Amino acid sequence: MNDASAGTMVIDGGVTAPPGFRAAGVHCGLRRARKDLALLVSDVPAAVAGVFTMNKAQAAPILVDRVQLRTGAPCSAVVVNSGNANACTGERGLNDAWTMVRTVASALGVPAEQVLVSSTGVIGQYLPMDRVLEGIPAAVAALDRANARDAAEAIMTTDTCLKEYAVRVTIGGQQITIGAMAKGSGMIAPNMATMLAFITTDLAIDQALLTPALKHVTERSFNRISVDGDMSTNDMAIVMANGVAGNAPIVSAGDARYIEFRDALEHVMIVLAKMIARDGEGATKLIEVVVRGAASEEAATAAARSVANSNLVKTAIHGCDANWGRVLAALGYSGIEFNPDDVEIALNGVPVILRNYEIVLDEELAKEALSRDEVVIDISLGDGAHEVYFWTCDLTKEYIHINASYRS
Amino acid sequence: MNDASAGTMVIDGGVTAPPGFRAAGVHCGLRRARKDLALLVSDVPAAVAGVFTMNKAQAAPILVDRVQLRTGAPCSAVVVNSGNANACTGERGLNDAWTMVRTVASALGVPAEQVLVSSTGVIGQYLPMDRVLEGIPAAVAALDRANARDAAEAIMTTDTCLKEYAVRVTIGGQQITIGAMAKGSGMIAPNMATMLAFITTDLAIDQALLTPALKHVTERSFNRISVDGDMSTNDMAIVMANGVAGNAPIVSAGDARYIEFRDALEHVMIVLAKMIARDGEGATKLIEVVVRGAASEEAATAAARSVANSNLVKTAIHGCDANWGRVLAALGYSGIEFNPDDVEIALNGVPVILRNYEIVLDEELAKEALSRDEVVIDISLGDGAHEVYFWTCDLTKEYIHINASYRS
Repeated sequence: MNDASAGTMVIDGGVTAPPGFRAAGVHCGLRRARKDLALLVSDVPAAVAGVFTMNKAQAAPILVDRVQLRTGAPCSAVVVNSGNANACTGERGLNDAWTMVRTVASALGVPAEQVLVSSTGVIGQYLPMDRVLEGIPAAVAALDRANARDAAEAIMTTDTCLKEYAVRVTIGGQQITIGAMAKGSGMIAPNMATMLAFITTDLAIDQALLTPALKHVTERSFNRISVDGDMSTNDMAIVMANGVAGNAPIVSAGDARYIEFRDALEHVMIVLAKMIARDGEGATKLIEVVVRGAASEEAATAAARSVANSNLVKTAIHGCDANWGRVLAALGYSGIEFNPDDVEIALNGVPVILRNYEIVLDEELAKEALSRDEVVIDISLGDGAHEVYFWTCDLTKEYIHINASYRS
Repeated sequence: MNDASAGTMVIDGGVTAPPGFRAAGVHCGLRRARKDLALLVSDVPAAVAGVFTMNKAQAAPILVDRVQLRTGAPCSAVVVNSGNANACTGERGLNDAWTMVRTVASALGVPAEQVLVSSTGVIGQYLPMDRVLEGIPAAVAALDRANARDAAEAIMTTDTCLKEYAVRVTIGGQQITIGAMAKGSGMIAPNMATMLAFITTDLAIDQALLTPALKHVTERSFNRISVDGDMSTNDMAIVMANGVAGNAPIVSAGDARYIEFRDALEHVMIVLAKMIARDGEGATKLIEVVVRGAASEEAATAAARSVANSNLVKTAIHGCDANWGRVLAALGYSGIEFNPDDVEIALNGVPVILRNYEIVLDEELAKEALSRDEVVIDISLGDGAHEVYFWTCDLTKEYIHINASYRS
């Protein structure tokens, strides 16, 4: 699952790994002594696609970007601030987001519709625009292919580690590069934790194909970590394809290269999704929930989400407790149709319960298996042929500590 | 809201406050050095109604009680053990639950269909029936009107305080008594924490009316704490009405006394629901979420549930942080239709945001208001005339501590 396929080579770097992209990350004063303003630029206007939060309370930058993408214009730049979400800020917040767009466009000398904006941080506070407007020229001045890491740093909030990734893949026999950066945080649904992802490639592909590719892959990656259905006011993922590789543009979904690209994108986005889940606030473990033998992909996803969202399952895994009853109970309230008698569960390869409630749990063995920092909860519903992977993290005291004092 | 109405007098005692009920709570060895087996008996067969978990994985006692209630028989006794949920235990667990029923029936000399059974505790372990079968005669021997408190103790699991309540009410001009005991625990949805409630009354009422009354009230009490939709494998609430008061039996829903009784039952069950929420695992505060101005009761309930289930809201309240953005975001992903611009939020009476995102939050004032051990999150959607109350608790490090080591 989600391993790099043959011909995929992981390389150093992030969003500027593909040629034609430059980045910057600077400190403008939204956060204390930390980079808080990122700029990502494509030297030639890039085909672009975006997916956005489904939350009814949409942050100002989300509203702006939806308008921008509807123009059909390509994308030359994305400006991102951390430290303030510019969410629940009404008319004034919307004006601020547009001001960010126009200021970047004018500093770069590109049309305003080619600029996207993104924010993450505290909700319900106005952006200190004086600082942002000082930061933008500083970021423009710092733009460099060598500065992807600075940009990845500048979008972090409660993230404990920087998230960037890059691969070289072969598409239609040609070497293509895909780079990415992301940020995530609180992983505990039903809640919100802003998830941002920016993916770049030098592939030439029609903008009309980029959106279905991104949507398809989002469903199998970012929508399968505990954030998704319960998206924040600010979640977004953007893909930019600038065509600098010079391949004959991919213009049809029937082109074999389209599937090659989509598979590569899926690999990159699943790696990012797992990075985000692993770095859930206070997390000490990455939990992979695998649901097999489901009647449909929808049922498998609902079952996996229910288990991944269960505070009781997440605390049990934190305590290395093979408490499979909590897993079964979470399946039981997931809303899917299934027969509990048919369920089989294994934890990191150690079977704990077989069909008809045959308990085969070896507590010692299970405790040892659960002490690893990656835990796979493997569930077989015995009800069909569909399977789904879902990622989350354990729930710890540190999560409470972080979130009881976030604004202070 | 939910205050005792005029003519309702809170009295000492629990399930044996109404005449004709006796109870016992003994230690049979399912838990270390704590009472773990409760017995509640009505000296005359009582009209009975029950509501049960919607979880697909239903514990053995739930399956048994559903069968029992379908017989239409009255109820003479309920036996309850803590320390083991007898859930996910298959055929053997079902046999064990039936054995408990038959053993109690034979010890009391009542028909087996007049006995209900209930279990709470760890999932996925077989009941040590030798201990249970030793405990039942001990409980029968201990039956006494004075022992309601022992019974209420014996049903506790991670509860930190005993939950019992009794009132004297006037129904049709006659004094009637209602008594109750309950247990609850982990309050953090989307999860499960067994909630049990047993309510007794000396009122004479037709069994056919008891079920709709219980269902109506459950919707407005136990289904409005964070457990509900995500019920455990074992949740149940039982009402027994033994008619010892000697009133002319209530046989029609059109009888004014039916509504008087239902209102009294609602008062009792809301008190129990709040007791359970306040004693959520690790909780330091009771949180009351009020949603007003909703387009429908369903919308109000969905909105309130979303806020009450939000880990981020619950940790913010724990930290006395007036982080209203998290409240708004939880409304945003609740699935209801509303306009975020119209939302107004007050915390313990301190307005924090008015229409059109007018932020009126006084941080000092809000922090002080939130430092109380009861916090009301008052939300106005500006979208209609419906309002709903919902209860939950804050999310603390102690919750993690309890649940990371529950089985150990």
